[in-house]
Amino acid sequence: MKMIDVAGKAATVREAVARGRLRCSKAALAAVKAGRVEKGDVLAAARLAGILAAKHTPDIVPLCHPIALSGVEVDVGLVRGGVAIEARARTVERTGVEMEALAAVMGAALCVYDMLKSIDRGMVIEEVALWRKAGGRSGTWRRAAG
Amino acid sequence: MKMIDVAGKAATVREAVARGRLRCSKAALAAVKAGRVEKGDVLAAARLAGILAAKHTPDIVPLCHPIALSGVEVDVGLVRGGVAIEARARTVERTGVEMEALAAVMGAALCVYDMLKSIDRGMVIEEVALWRKAGGRSGTWRRAAG
Amino acid sequence: MKMIDVAGKAATVREAVARGRLRCSKAALAAVKAGRVEKGDVLAAARLAGILAAKHTPDIVPLCHPIALSGVEVDVGLVRGGVAIEARARTVERTGVEMEALAAVMGAALCVYDMLKSIDRGMVIEEVALWRKAGGRSGTWRRAAG
Amino acid sequence: MKMIDVAGKAATVREAVARGRLRCSKAALAAVKAGRVEKGDVLAAARLAGILAAKHTPDIVPLCHPIALSGVEVDVGLVRGGVAIEARARTVERTGVEMEALAAVMGAALCVYDMLKSIDRGMVIEEVALWRKAGGRSGTWRRAAG
Amino acid sequence: MKMIDVAGKAATVREAVARGRLRCSKAALAAVKAGRVEKGDVLAAARLAGILAAKHTPDIVPLCHPIALSGVEVDVGLVRGGVAIEARARTVERTGVEMEALAAVMGAALCVYDMLKSIDRGMVIEEVALWRKAGGRSGTWRRAAG
Amino acid sequence: MKMIDVAGKAATVREAVARGRLRCSKAALAAVKAGRVEKGDVLAAARLAGILAAKHTPDIVPLCHPIALSGVEVDVGLVRGGVAIEARARTVERTGVEMEALAAVMGAALCVYDMLKSIDRGMVIEEVALWRKAGGRSGTWRRAAG
Repeated sequence: MKMIDVAGKAATVREAVARGRLRCSKAALAAVKAGRVEKGDVLAAARLAGILAAKHTPDIVPLCHPIALSGVEVDVGLVRGGVAIEARARTVERTGVEMEALAAVMGAALCVYDMLKSIDRGMVIEEVALWRKAGGRSGTWRRAAG
Repeated sequence: MKMIDVAGKAATVREAVARGRLRCSKAALAAVKAGRVEKGDVLAAARLAGILAAKHTPDIVPLCHPIALSGVEVDVGLVRGGVAIEARARTVERTGVEMEALAAVMGAALCVYDMLKSIDRGMVIEEVALWRKAGGRSGTWRRAAG
Repeated sequence: MKMIDVAGKAATVREAVARGRLRCSKAALAAVKAGRVEKGDVLAAARLAGILAAKHTPDIVPLCHPIALSGVEVDVGLVRGGVAIEARARTVERTGVEMEALAAVMGAALCVYDMLKSIDRGMVIEEVALWRKAGGRSGTWRRAAG
Repeated sequence: MKMIDVAGKAATVREAVARGRLRCSKAALAAVKAGRVEKGDVLAAARLAGILAAKHTPDIVPLCHPIALSGVEVDVGLVRGGVAIEARARTVERTGVEMEALAAVMGAALCVYDMLKSIDRGMVIEEVALWRKAGGRSGTWRRAAG
Repeated sequence: MKMIDVAGKAATVREAVARGRLRCSKAALAAVKAGRVEKGDVLAAARLAGILAAKHTPDIVPLCHPIALSGVEVDVGLVRGGVAIEARARTVERTGVEMEALAAVMGAALCVYDMLKSIDRGMVIEEVALWRKAGGRSGTWRRAAG
Repeated sequence: MKMIDVAGKAATVREAVARGRLRCSKAALAAVKAGRVEKGDVLAAARLAGILAAKHTPDIVPLCHPIALSGVEVDVGLVRGGVAIEARARTVERTGVEMEALAAVMGAALCVYDMLKSIDRGMVIEEVALWRKAGGRSGTWRRAAG
C-alpha cells in the first residue's frame, strides 16, 4: 500500500462536487423545520461538520494526501423525505479533491444523524456520490444522467 | 448548540452496529478480486480506515463526545454489485456509540472509493444505516425489517 | 516536564466555567446583528468552535490529560462593545476541566475573530478567566468579586 | 457557512504578529522565576504550546484554511504582573496567518495557565490582539497606537 | 483486522515503562550540552514531544484503543555517545499502555533528531523496547536482563 | 524554541528514505508468516501505520512544519530475526521530509509491535536511521557505509 507520489504533477486548480442525502422520518424533518431540536441548529452544525470532515480526510482515508484546501462549501437543505447535501471542495495542488468533497458530504450527514437520532434512529444516508470533478490531467468529469 | 451532558448517566457497556454499501462497476470489482489495484489491498485498508474514522468521530461530528472506545470491528466484503460494510463499535461509557459505528462504515466506504476511483469515478455509497444498538437507558434497538 | 499522574485520584463529577469577551467595532457588531457576515452565522459557528477547542485541548496544552468530556456548553452573545462568551465543561474523571473550559472560550473567540476580521482587524480578546470550578479534592472554587 | 475559496489569490509571503498577556499573582510569578513549578519549565512549554496551537488552528476554527506554515516563533517572557506573549506566523500561501498567530498566543497562554493553576486559579488572559499583518492583497496593517 | 474488544476487562491501574536511545556525533552532543542548538532547548522539547506522541498513539497505531491517560513522564538525558530516553505511561483503563510508552520514547527521539539534524544527519535511534509493564490480567512483566 | 522560517527557501522536490528494524522472537515471526495473528494482517497494517505516522509528524514533533506530502511509501518485510522497514517520503515544499520518513518507520514499527505484543513483549525497535536525502539547498546526502 502506498500514498502514490504526485510530485511530478502540476499544481493546478482542482475542484470536486459531491452530493448525498439523509432519509428521515416526518417527525425528524418537522423538528428541524420548527427549530425544536434539543442539540441546536441542525443545518448550521451540519455545514460546519462537512467542512471539518473535509479537513480531516487524510486522518481517516489512509492513502489520501494531506493538502492545503483553498475552499470548501457545504449546502445542507431540507427536501421531501429528508436532507440533501452538496459539498464543493477546491484546491491548488498536485492532486484532486474528490475525497474531501465526499468526506464533507459524509461529515454533514453524520452530524444531521447525530442531532436527530433521539427522534429517529432509522435514518439512512444514501446516494453519496461524486457529481463533478474539474482540473488536473484527466480534465473535467461529470456524472452521467440517470 | 451544546454537547449534551451525560455525567448523570451510568457507565455501562454500549454497542452499535451499522452497515452500508458501495456500489461500483464490474471493472472495479474485478480489480479488487484480482488484487490488481495499484494502491494496494483494498479490503485491508478499508477495515483500518473504518477503525480510524471511528476514532476520529469527535473531530468531525461537532457535538459528539470524545470517548474511550473498547473495541471496533469492521467487516468489508465483496458482494454482487459492490462492497458491503458492517461496523461494530463498543464502549463502557455514559453515551452510545452509534455515531462511531456509522463513521466507521463511512470511513471504510471512503477508503474503498479512494483506492478504486482511478477505475470507476461513478461509485455510490448507499444505505448507510444503524442496524442495532444495545446498552444504556434506552436499551436495545433493532432496525425494522424491510 | 511531566503530565502529572492522577491515577490515585477518584473519578468524580468535575465542572468548570470560564468566561471571556471579544471587543469589536460597532461596524462588526452591526454586521453580526444584521446577519450580514459573508462567512455565515457567527454565533452558531462560535459555539461549535468552542466545543471543538475543548475537545482538542490535549493536542495544544502539552501537559493536559486526554479525557472523556461528558458535556460542553458554550454561550456566545452580543453585548455592548462586543461579544461575551461563557463555556461550561463537565467530566467524570480523575482530573479537572478548567483547561477545557478556558480553551472553549478561546476557540469561540478565535472563531468570532475569524469571521469578522474582514470588517475589523483590531478586535481584542480580553478577560478570559476561570469563573467557577467544582468537584475533585479541592472542592468548589469561585472567582472573587471585582 | 463556508470556507471562502482563495484559489484565485496569489501564493505570496504572508506574516502576522499577535500579542497577549496573562495576568497572575506574585506567588505564581515568583514560582516561575525560581523554577519551582512542579510541572516543569513554564516558558519553554508555553513556547511549544503556542507552536502546536498554530498548527492545530484549522481543527478548532471551523472556517480556517489548512495551510503549510513556513515558520512560527513564540516569545514568552515575564513582565510586571504576569507573562507577555508575542507570536509571529509566516507562510507562502493564498491566505493570511492572523488566526494562526492569535491561536499561538492563546495556546501559549493556556499552557502557562495549566502549569500555574495549582498556585493561582484566578489568572486572566487579556489583551490578545493582532499587532501587525503583512502580505497579500490588502498589504500591511499595523495596530493603531493606544 | 480489528481493535480487540476490551469491554469485558476490568478498569485497573496499568503502567508501562519503555526506553530507547539516540546515538549521535560528539559535535551534536556538545551542541546540546552547550545550549548552542539553533532551534532551542533540546531536552525540554523532547520531553514534551514524548508526551504528545503518547497522546497521539491512537492516530498512528491503527488498532490501538483511544484511552484517557492518567499520567505520562518522559526523561531525556545525555549519556556517553548520545541521548537516553525513558518514558512511563499510566492509566486506569481496560487496556495496557505499552504502546503509549513506546510511542513516547519514539516521539522524544524524533524530536531530538529534528533539533540536531542540521549538525548530524547520521544519528540512529536504537534499542527502543518495553522495560516493564504492570497491571491488568497478565500482571507484571519485566524485561529479562541482558 | 521556534519553528524555523523557511519562507525564503525554494519549493522544490525533496525526498527522504529512512530504514529501521524490529527484532522479534521466532514465535512472533512464525505467527506473521503463517497469518495466525489475532489482530489481522500485520504487514498491511504496518504499511498504513507508517503512512499515518508520516502525516501526523507535525502533531508529535513540535518544531516540524506542517506540509503537503506528495507521496509516502512504506515497505515492511520479514527478514531473519525480525521485520525490516523502509519508508520513502516526498514533497514539493520549502523544507525536507526526513522527519516524515523517520516517523513512518517508527509508526510501522510500533504497529508491528502492537499486533505481536501478545506473543512477544520483548521485541526491540532498532537501527532507525536516515538513509538518503535529496533536494533542497544542501543537495543529496547518503548514509556512509558501515
